[in-house]
Amino acid sequence: MKLVRFGNPGHEKPGIIDGDGRRRDCSSLFHDWDSGFFRNGGLNELKSLMANKQESLPVVPDDVRHGPCVARPGKIICIGLNYSDHAAEAGLEMPKEPMIFLKAPNTTVGPYDDILLPRRSSKVDWEVELGVIVGQEARYLPSEAAAEECIAGYCISHDVSERSFQFDRGGQWTKGKSCDTFNPLGPWLLTRDECSNSARLRLSLEVNGVPKQEGSTATMAFGPAALIHYLSQFMTLEAGDLISTGTPPGVGFARKPQEFLREGDVVTLSIEGLGIQRQMCRLA
Amino acid sequence: MKLVRFGNPGHEKPGIIDGDGRRRDCSSLFHDWDSGFFRNGGLNELKSLMANKQESLPVVPDDVRHGPCVARPGKIICIGLNYSDHAAEAGLEMPKEPMIFLKAPNTTVGPYDDILLPRRSSKVDWEVELGVIVGQEARYLPSEAAAEECIAGYCISHDVSERSFQFDRGGQWTKGKSCDTFNPLGPWLLTRDECSNSARLRLSLEVNGVPKQEGSTATMAFGPAALIHYLSQFMTLEAGDLISTGTPPGVGFARKPQEFLREGDVVTLSIEGLGIQRQMCRLA
Repeated sequence: MKLVRFGNPGHEKPGIIDGDGRRRDCSSLFHDWDSGFFRNGGLNELKSLMANKQESLPVVPDDVRHGPCVARPGKIICIGLNYSDHAAEAGLEMPKEPMIFLKAPNTTVGPYDDILLPRRSSKVDWEVELGVIVGQEARYLPSEAAAEECIAGYCISHDVSERSFQFDRGGQWTKGKSCDTFNPLGPWLLTRDECSNSARLRLSLEVNGVPKQEGSTATMAFGPAALIHYLSQFMTLEAGDLISTGTPPGVGFARKPQEFLREGDVVTLSIEGLGIQRQMCRLA
Repeated sequence: MKLVRFGNPGHEKPGIIDGDGRRRDCSSLFHDWDSGFFRNGGLNELKSLMANKQESLPVVPDDVRHGPCVARPGKIICIGLNYSDHAAEAGLEMPKEPMIFLKAPNTTVGPYDDILLPRRSSKVDWEVELGVIVGQEARYLPSEAAAEECIAGYCISHDVSERSFQFDRGGQWTKGKSCDTFNPLGPWLLTRDECSNSARLRLSLEVNGVPKQEGSTATMAFGPAALIHYLSQFMTLEAGDLISTGTPPGVGFARKPQEFLREGDVVTLSIEGLGIQRQMCRLA
């Protein structure tokens, strides 16, 4: 299944994409694609309902905004340097174990919303990433197989970053990662049962139509199940949490010369099977 | 006013502490002390209701658990090296601007709940901190005076940390800061109007009755209003967010020899006017 959310910011409703690619309104059946939905077996319930009810659900008009594909996550965990070819371009050694940081949950926006360039920013950069939504509580998992069961599904997660805030303003990376609109999410969540090839998905990103990032999840050091197993040794992952699994080569700050986003730029992201995102950059 | 929450984890109800120090149940009047409550002027409403209604509210029995004093924050922002005497003991220079990092919001627990020592941990450390709860949305604030208006109130925030996870496992500090139970919060939120001396509050922490930390918010480099003003230049702070403003000297990893928490240890924290926390350490 492909889960979507639609409507104005803060008032999104849950929907799915039907066999003909149309959005269908599920708000008469479910409150939202949120932590409680995933935790309480909502995906199974939705699946059995959709087997025969799908055609009776209202079609969402095309001009209704696409929201983030899941409700605001309880936490967003990002993985640094998880692609061997990205580590090479950054001139850094691959970490021996996953490198993690947090992003503020209120950074999530819809896949076609604008990216706001923060005031006094100069180095806003792109990072296409495979997003993984956690489907059930995970704490001290015994194996990667158990971790695999905790995956609700996959989506595109744009880990937008401001490099001068991230690297030149002291301390941890938080300042450059948690600015408003810095995490476009969607357009849809593809449930795990329908994504058999998560270990070899092509990812790409263009700026104004020019290819910038190109990669495959095949060059990931730590795949989704390995990450969830690892993270669960440190903290409890909750249903609805988002894990952004790192970015392939081609980010702006690693290019020679460096390149960053400017007002009016359009960024287009795609991951095989997970759709396309497109954002226009404008001043905050 | 002093706001509290009581009841079992995940099912806490809102209350206040009356003039005689008893907890009163406010759940017939308010849903929770959460983001919506603060954002929608709940504190003013509560204040006028309490002027005459307080005595009619049910007293909460003493044996009912004390929860975190506010609902789970949307984000927890922590400030590193914010006390000049703590920077000195750690052998580090004071940062030129606030050093920030995030802590996962599901770390919050009640002020008397157990601290769980994570599996494979060896260096669990204490940090008494002044917690500030944001009372309204803050984005690109023009001044510290405007930031002051965004403070709902103050509470004790225990920024528990695992130093080997934080420093020896690669990458950012997240792994050592976001373990379960690593943010006891409360016992109460003292509203800003009743805390005139936030710039000179005494803080202290004992382990098994032995004094370990002792300090005053007077040696903070950046006070609460300066921090909120600063943070609002990078990201939107939302009502209900928690800012942990840094710790005074005496943490375990800066002691010679280093000291860390072990099973059965009891940690007691106090801040002038904000009550006392007490946690027992046990194995996760």
